[in-house]
Amino acid sequence: MALDDQKGSFKFIGTRPDRPDGLDKVTGRARFGADAHASGMLHAAILRSPHAHARILNIDTSKAEAARGVKAIVTRADFTQSLQPAPGMKGENWNILENVMAGDTALYDGHAIAAVAATSALAAKDALKLIEVEYEPLPHVTDVDKAMQPDAPVIREGVAAGTVPDGMHPNVAGYHESGHGDVEAGFAEADLVIEDHFVTEATHQGYIEPHACLAQLGADGKGELWCCTQGHWNVQKVCAALLDLETSQLRVTASEIGGGFGGKTAVFIEPVALALSRKASRPVKLVMSRAEVFRATGPTSSTSMDVKIGMKKDGTITAAQGVFRLQGGAFPGAPADMTAMCAFAPYALKNVHQIGYDVMTNRPKQAAYRAPGSPMAAFAVESVIDELCNQLGLDPIDTRLRNASHEGTKASYGPRFQRIGLVETLEAAKAHPHYTAPLKPGQGRGISCGFWFNHGGETSVSLALSEDGTVQLAVGTPDIGGSRASIALMAAEVLGVPYDNIRVIIADTASLGYNEISHGSRVTYASGLATIKAAEDAVKKLCARAAAKWGIPEDAVKWEDGCAVPSGPNAGEFPPMPIAEITRKMGATGGPICGHYEATPEGAGVSFATHIVDAEVDPETGKTSVVRYTVVQDAGKAIHPTYVEGQFQGGAAQGIGWALNEEYIYGEDGRLQNPLFLDYRIPVASDLPMIDTVIVEVPNPGHPYGVRGVGETSICPPLAAIANAVSAAAGVRLRQLPMSPPRILEALEEQTRDG
Amino acid sequence: MALDDQKGSFKFIGTRPDRPDGLDKVTGRARFGADAHASGMLHAAILRSPHAHARILNIDTSKAEAARGVKAIVTRADFTQSLQPAPGMKGENWNILENVMAGDTALYDGHAIAAVAATSALAAKDALKLIEVEYEPLPHVTDVDKAMQPDAPVIREGVAAGTVPDGMHPNVAGYHESGHGDVEAGFAEADLVIEDHFVTEATHQGYIEPHACLAQLGADGKGELWCCTQGHWNVQKVCAALLDLETSQLRVTASEIGGGFGGKTAVFIEPVALALSRKASRPVKLVMSRAEVFRATGPTSSTSMDVKIGMKKDGTITAAQGVFRLQGGAFPGAPADMTAMCAFAPYALKNVHQIGYDVMTNRPKQAAYRAPGSPMAAFAVESVIDELCNQLGLDPIDTRLRNASHEGTKASYGPRFQRIGLVETLEAAKAHPHYTAPLKPGQGRGISCGFWFNHGGETSVSLALSEDGTVQLAVGTPDIGGSRASIALMAAEVLGVPYDNIRVIIADTASLGYNEISHGSRVTYASGLATIKAAEDAVKKLCARAAAKWGIPEDAVKWEDGCAVPSGPNAGEFPPMPIAEITRKMGATGGPICGHYEATPEGAGVSFATHIVDAEVDPETGKTSVVRYTVVQDAGKAIHPTYVEGQFQGGAAQGIGWALNEEYIYGEDGRLQNPLFLDYRIPVASDLPMIDTVIVEVPNPGHPYGVRGVGETSICPPLAAIANAVSAAAGVRLRQLPMSPPRILEALEEQTRDG
Repeated sequence: MALDDQKGSFKFIGTRPDRPDGLDKVTGRARFGADAHASGMLHAAILRSPHAHARILNIDTSKAEAARGVKAIVTRADFTQSLQPAPGMKGENWNILENVMAGDTALYDGHAIAAVAATSALAAKDALKLIEVEYEPLPHVTDVDKAMQPDAPVIREGVAAGTVPDGMHPNVAGYHESGHGDVEAGFAEADLVIEDHFVTEATHQGYIEPHACLAQLGADGKGELWCCTQGHWNVQKVCAALLDLETSQLRVTASEIGGGFGGKTAVFIEPVALALSRKASRPVKLVMSRAEVFRATGPTSSTSMDVKIGMKKDGTITAAQGVFRLQGGAFPGAPADMTAMCAFAPYALKNVHQIGYDVMTNRPKQAAYRAPGSPMAAFAVESVIDELCNQLGLDPIDTRLRNASHEGTKASYGPRFQRIGLVETLEAAKAHPHYTAPLKPGQGRGISCGFWFNHGGETSVSLALSEDGTVQLAVGTPDIGGSRASIALMAAEVLGVPYDNIRVIIADTASLGYNEISHGSRVTYASGLATIKAAEDAVKKLCARAAAKWGIPEDAVKWEDGCAVPSGPNAGEFPPMPIAEITRKMGATGGPICGHYEATPEGAGVSFATHIVDAEVDPETGKTSVVRYTVVQDAGKAIHPTYVEGQFQGGAAQGIGWALNEEYIYGEDGRLQNPLFLDYRIPVASDLPMIDTVIVEVPNPGHPYGVRGVGETSICPPLAAIANAVSAAAGVRLRQLPMSPPRILEALEEQTRDG
Repeated sequence: MALDDQKGSFKFIGTRPDRPDGLDKVTGRARFGADAHASGMLHAAILRSPHAHARILNIDTSKAEAARGVKAIVTRADFTQSLQPAPGMKGENWNILENVMAGDTALYDGHAIAAVAATSALAAKDALKLIEVEYEPLPHVTDVDKAMQPDAPVIREGVAAGTVPDGMHPNVAGYHESGHGDVEAGFAEADLVIEDHFVTEATHQGYIEPHACLAQLGADGKGELWCCTQGHWNVQKVCAALLDLETSQLRVTASEIGGGFGGKTAVFIEPVALALSRKASRPVKLVMSRAEVFRATGPTSSTSMDVKIGMKKDGTITAAQGVFRLQGGAFPGAPADMTAMCAFAPYALKNVHQIGYDVMTNRPKQAAYRAPGSPMAAFAVESVIDELCNQLGLDPIDTRLRNASHEGTKASYGPRFQRIGLVETLEAAKAHPHYTAPLKPGQGRGISCGFWFNHGGETSVSLALSEDGTVQLAVGTPDIGGSRASIALMAAEVLGVPYDNIRVIIADTASLGYNEISHGSRVTYASGLATIKAAEDAVKKLCARAAAKWGIPEDAVKWEDGCAVPSGPNAGEFPPMPIAEITRKMGATGGPICGHYEATPEGAGVSFATHIVDAEVDPETGKTSVVRYTVVQDAGKAIHPTYVEGQFQGGAAQGIGWALNEEYIYGEDGRLQNPLFLDYRIPVASDLPMIDTVIVEVPNPGHPYGVRGVGETSICPPLAAIANAVSAAAGVRLRQLPMSPPRILEALEEQTRDG
């Protein structure tokens, strides 16, 4: 059955049952990272660098070791020595180790220097004060543009990727260049060319639960780890490398997760807790404070971007080019490539060229945050398009429709798009009442498109039937957005059993095949696909049992509504045999019935969104209010529409914070000045309007039900859409985020002064 | 390759590496039942009946509910009502519920009446004293023979199985009869017929760890349970039934187990903790005291047995019959059938007849204890054979060899034996220096054979490869005897990877297909077989990856020593590809590599043993010392010989306790008088000699490597072997267990009196 024809033919897909973990979450039954407990466990604390950049001359732990209750202290010497810098120190594990525990140099304010395990959290914290560290402060740099200048202090020598052009400052760790056509020729064809410079600040994912883990590691190299992570197989692999363990000997269990948004794809405290446990021969619990989360986990990159776009009077884009400089902290890895690749992806362009720079500074190593790199690119590109539309008097949606990527378009980053839904989101946005609703004085409306690749990735799912015909489903992707519900719905659809009869669990690393991190909007797509295949595997076995019972060929049995049914020439010969009738006797008819699937699905469909936002700017205070917000996004197929809408709303809400208020503020001393939610302002309920959503469904041909990931694309348009709305409302173009009141006031004053 | 030819061809099988859980066990890292902990958990205690039999007129919990710290109290009303007695109250779940929490009648001393969950264990215990129970004491019976007499108090009406002959006392809950030939004709052919009466007392498995669990159950019917059990899928199924849950919605994790020996195959406290948790909306921990373990878990049946055997002068047994009365506590289910079936299994008999009675009394429900029912039968049968040999002047081993069952024998209980190793154990015993070693004055030597069926059962295994080529292996059978080691060895053998590269874990119920309890000596056999099959499944996939890489057909790749190797026409075309080279790239070459197997293997080979024991009896004190002990047993194939020997030794040690000292002592009031290890005397190290072992290997054709279970057969011969040695040493036949000093003195005095 073609995907489009499936619409309406589903029994469970598309319904909106309660999430399986709902009661857990509201009653406190859910066990988060810090809820883990082991008999005899110690508590740990980490000593962190007060310097943005400093040589570590000496660490004296003797007084701390003698302190009451202290059972172990670790420094870099307690980690594997086999990860010594390879030529160029380029290995990812080396960089993770260097970030987990500083070697000879503290690279940023908050960099871990040593850690203590003691009989209480207080004793551990007190002991930190007794560790004497001799530092030699070094010059530092925290700004991306300054870090690229010839006289910038060098963060680390020799880590640059081979692709970085000669002559770049050593702080440039990565370089990406792509595109096609001839942009100069394209600009020459344009009726109007606009080139602008844009700047964004680092923001944090702001997950409510700080990183927490409980580790147990013995002298025999066997360990157990419970932690709050988006990907416990990754934690397993990284910790094994950093501690010289065999991967399989470390069993990692993911706790419930109090938010991640990409920020819990990285490894920070887990190797430290394991090293302490090994040294103390005791279980060790390690929980970050909020300030530690801000100072020493991964915010987004800050950026400095130049975008130039040429347009004809009819709205046709003739050429586009962009340079995207991403500040990634003291390590290589900022997603400059993805930023560059996403920038112009929504548009079918003859001439396009993009460059990305991955730049190191004395800041914490950036981490993924929902569609890493894409929102900043969209901010720059969609602002320029908006400005072009303004100056040429064009409708912003019609203009985007005229240039929109569609099936067969050669994407700005190379491949040809399969079936995609950008046009459909633009048309739905245009048709939405919001787009034509009147605005009050002082209000402005902005729109923006956004793009994310989406990802498949290594995935394993196993499914076991209970004797009563209910279903146990083990996936390996931590549930960061309601995926237990969507996965149960897909299993229900295949098996024909009620949603409530299915229990989805997140299996530990020892109980299931490898699973990539819950990232790349991959979970409902990839674990969903694997669930469908595993359920089909189980259905095949169920049908075989019925066939054996009936004495008819296996292929003469089909599965309908949770029952084996004789079909073909045997149709009607026996009454349908319900699942529970088969499972009740499974032990005696061949054994337990399970379904399994392991694969690396590669058909994750790319995803597009169009957002419409109305903003009101108070010219007295510079405060921006978002008064109306509509998200239109292609979900491929919305398995559980409520949680799809939740993802849409969540992305918009985080985008609003990013656009208007959130920023890392570094002082002259290179230290983070606002490492608490009091000073780092994320939106609260009263800051947000109701966020309306429109689910567009253009099926992804790479998934049996047409699913596309929805978790990330929703954060791509907000920065630009709000900037465009603010520009419309305030009459002045904002090119720097956050568009906080002081910055808006400054822009308004500058306009008055210039005007 | 035929099984016999495999000898010596193994690389890992038959080696003796350290057990994977060794360090865990000696450092305290292993997490046992009582180590489970959940944030906000409550502690529970159970109020137990002080009466052997009493009607419960009223339970007033109001004062206890008002007590400080008390969060929930449950009685029978808090369990499912849908298990109301079916006609005859015969359902197993009904009986379990009735045992877990008394209904309208307390059926034995220690029967659970109510339970309290409170903020501390002390508060819970204190609150028990505030629960007011109005009892109406009823007449009771605790002895199996008395319970069958016409005037015995009726424990429960209407629970007898349909097979029980008319006219039996209602306390007879089950009846078994089997055999073949004509025993009367056989006895007529005999030169000597001996008939004797034997009695054994109930003994407890004496596991070091009391039952413990942590339960969490919500109003949504979703639960988590951590418990110390031999079979968590069984706990899951039973608890779901008793609490009206869907099986799959209750996830059960087995803790490390501090001994089970069959006693942790039953469910006692888990449903109580779940009911308390549901009522309190909090996690609840429940840990039994030692006295509770004695009073309210399952000891063995006590027995009353009559055995009659006829023998010719040459040692040929002409006929054998036995009547075995098993006292099973207040519920049906004593293994009278197995006792009867095992009794004469070692012997190829033309005429044999056996009857078993399952008899209820006012005692706790009996539970399995290593080869349930078989040791008592062997005690009776092998004592009579010993006496026949004595009186006919025959060698006890030669006589047993003359009558021994062998391949093709029609077993006393029906089927024909496949390949078995009884003759080989007898021959090995005969050849052992122990058998001909001189005895000191006052010492006697006894021998005995023993038999156990062994079991296969529903089994699921999954195996996942890590990128570094190490192996994670998930089985569902709690490791009660070193099975992690034997299973890892079998996986190592198939995969060709080092033993240390394999981590075996006991998966929870949600992460793996159904697994029967670790019982019936089935684990190394069934989980081992499933491991071999799962590893072969993985090997097939590994070969396919190599084939794809090499561009040759899949069947042109074989697996050798942990490497894919081109074979057949492609032999030598490519160098061997090691496992880690394949797994390192598995994500990009098709996805994670796993192996799975689910089945109900039915080829568990039966097992035989022959024990030789020298005992010395002090005629002054009646104390028996076991001075030398040799176990000879057929293991089929000893995967890890050290743990096979450990099972042999453990069975012998427990048998020595059972034979000489252990017994449940009930007072006139029907209350257990020795519910602590001070008064219930299990052997300590100084009570035991070094127990020598001889592993006989007669491969089981039902297992790829020939494995037979070894855990249970080892406890079958000791009771009889020691009784025979004691008889030889003291010159008087002991027909009642335990052969404790007072009983031996009594026998000696009686002999003096009679002689």
